[in-house]
Amino acid sequence: MILALAGGVGGARLANGLATILPPEELIIVVNTGDDFEHLGLHISPDIDTVTYTLAGLNNPKEGWGLAGESWAFMDALKRLGGESWFQLGDQDMATHVERTWRLKTLPLSAITTEFCARLGVRHRVAPMTDDPVRTLVETDEGQLAFQDYFVRRRCAPRLLGVSFAGLETARPGAALLSALADPELSAIVICPSNPLLSIRPILSLAGVTNLLSRRRVPVVAVSPFIGGKSVKGPAAKIMHELNLPVTPAGLLSFYDGLLDGMVIDRADADLADSLTGCAMLVTDTLMRNHADQDRLASETLDFTRQLSPRQDHKLM
Amino acid sequence: MILALAGGVGGARLANGLATILPPEELIIVVNTGDDFEHLGLHISPDIDTVTYTLAGLNNPKEGWGLAGESWAFMDALKRLGGESWFQLGDQDMATHVERTWRLKTLPLSAITTEFCARLGVRHRVAPMTDDPVRTLVETDEGQLAFQDYFVRRRCAPRLLGVSFAGLETARPGAALLSALADPELSAIVICPSNPLLSIRPILSLAGVTNLLSRRRVPVVAVSPFIGGKSVKGPAAKIMHELNLPVTPAGLLSFYDGLLDGMVIDRADADLADSLTGCAMLVTDTLMRNHADQDRLASETLDFTRQLSPRQDHKLM
Repeated sequence: MILALAGGVGGARLANGLATILPPEELIIVVNTGDDFEHLGLHISPDIDTVTYTLAGLNNPKEGWGLAGESWAFMDALKRLGGESWFQLGDQDMATHVERTWRLKTLPLSAITTEFCARLGVRHRVAPMTDDPVRTLVETDEGQLAFQDYFVRRRCAPRLLGVSFAGLETARPGAALLSALADPELSAIVICPSNPLLSIRPILSLAGVTNLLSRRRVPVVAVSPFIGGKSVKGPAAKIMHELNLPVTPAGLLSFYDGLLDGMVIDRADADLADSLTGCAMLVTDTLMRNHADQDRLASETLDFTRQLSPRQDHKLM
Repeated sequence: MILALAGGVGGARLANGLATILPPEELIIVVNTGDDFEHLGLHISPDIDTVTYTLAGLNNPKEGWGLAGESWAFMDALKRLGGESWFQLGDQDMATHVERTWRLKTLPLSAITTEFCARLGVRHRVAPMTDDPVRTLVETDEGQLAFQDYFVRRRCAPRLLGVSFAGLETARPGAALLSALADPELSAIVICPSNPLLSIRPILSLAGVTNLLSRRRVPVVAVSPFIGGKSVKGPAAKIMHELNLPVTPAGLLSFYDGLLDGMVIDRADADLADSLTGCAMLVTDTLMRNHADQDRLASETLDFTRQLSPRQDHKLM
């Protein structure tokens, strides 16, 4: 059984590749909820939706986020009424937000996510990292901003000074995450190519998760979200630069601070990885332009984790 | 200045005719909010929307409710997620509900209605009867139901035993309604052809309104929503029958219990009105199939009110 940790678009793409290869009982995808937010009174879970829509085959493959064939009558009518229009809400997508917000009055996010997955034909397990509210806050040269304010409204223009996660200290790791970490069938943990700081760190920082990981007997492999010193999608590289975190294999290894047993990096970064020790490397093409790329990268990553298992053996490599 | 009291489709049509004839400063339309309800966590004000959309020229002329050219991507996606689908929510219409619900956290319904009207190009004043929650409840042979449950979900199938309005006793009449009733420029009150029991009674039953009306010096004229013993649209006739309220000019006069100085009835009901006393009658075509019908009926109704003014004179008629 594979535990995949994922954030937005890149994570969703690799998770989709893993889901193509692995049967439903052999994969669980735990998703960041740090960039969840409330907008127009609606609870929005961008990463959960990106992963769910992608696994359902309903995602907009061009944008990465949102639904294919989406329409925008709601958004146009909202603008006509003078409503806030900086966050794009498609007509179909609105059903997700409205129905989720409504159900959250009586159900936890994890139960709603399970139900939505079933309804949309997603057979693999997708679970939020926690059912408790965690909210990413960014310190910038223009003051503190809620993450989506910074990310979408301001398009990451302010210079980043730091990141914090309100609620993270008291948030309980989701039941799916805890049971996956305790599952004797667990064979590897795959950190998908999502933003290390904004998507993966919140998951790893949940109470007890680091402790459970330190006692793990399975390898942890990260697929780098960087290619040639740039992020494939999103602001990861800009953010890492501004926080003096090098956008290199060494930088990623250092960021994950002894957690990684293996790293999957792009050919463009092969030279940079030559001198790295303490972590196995798989050099391949990491850009996922289509389903074939997703499946191939997922397959290579799974093969790589098998070379590293069990962990005691890996320590001797 | 004319004060029009209105509920849903029929009321919106006559109000639209009045708005075509009268300049903005000479008309205020006070709308029932008894059939407002919460659905999927959203605050929905069906009558306010029907009046606003109609005056904005954005309404669906065929259905009466909703917006012209509406699309249903939200609804289809909601059904896919297993959400409640008995109440139709169009994509554009959703913007109204979401934005209103959001603003209601900080603003009264009246302020939001004014802003929405301005945004949609409605120049005449439209105001909810109250900013306080009033909820129509119906007693039926299947037990008590919230109004929209009875009206939309059950399509008025249960037999009606009674109607009540939760919150009505403590609801304060809206500022627009109170100021219109106190306005020295007020020349007549027009009760639009809306459901007398469900749309008009809540407005008239607000604390102090009956008292203010009893001291009025302007005529009150009702345009009958019935033609030949049937309601033009909606369940008014069925409801009146089940409550043993005759669907005739005499029944309407009795229902309004001494309030009316004049009544506008359809030619189909002319015979029934011959023997009525104590109320002036205008017999005309009351069916409003199009804008021309709306304008003509509004014009005839206004002329009729002028014949009745001032009220002292009318009492001598």
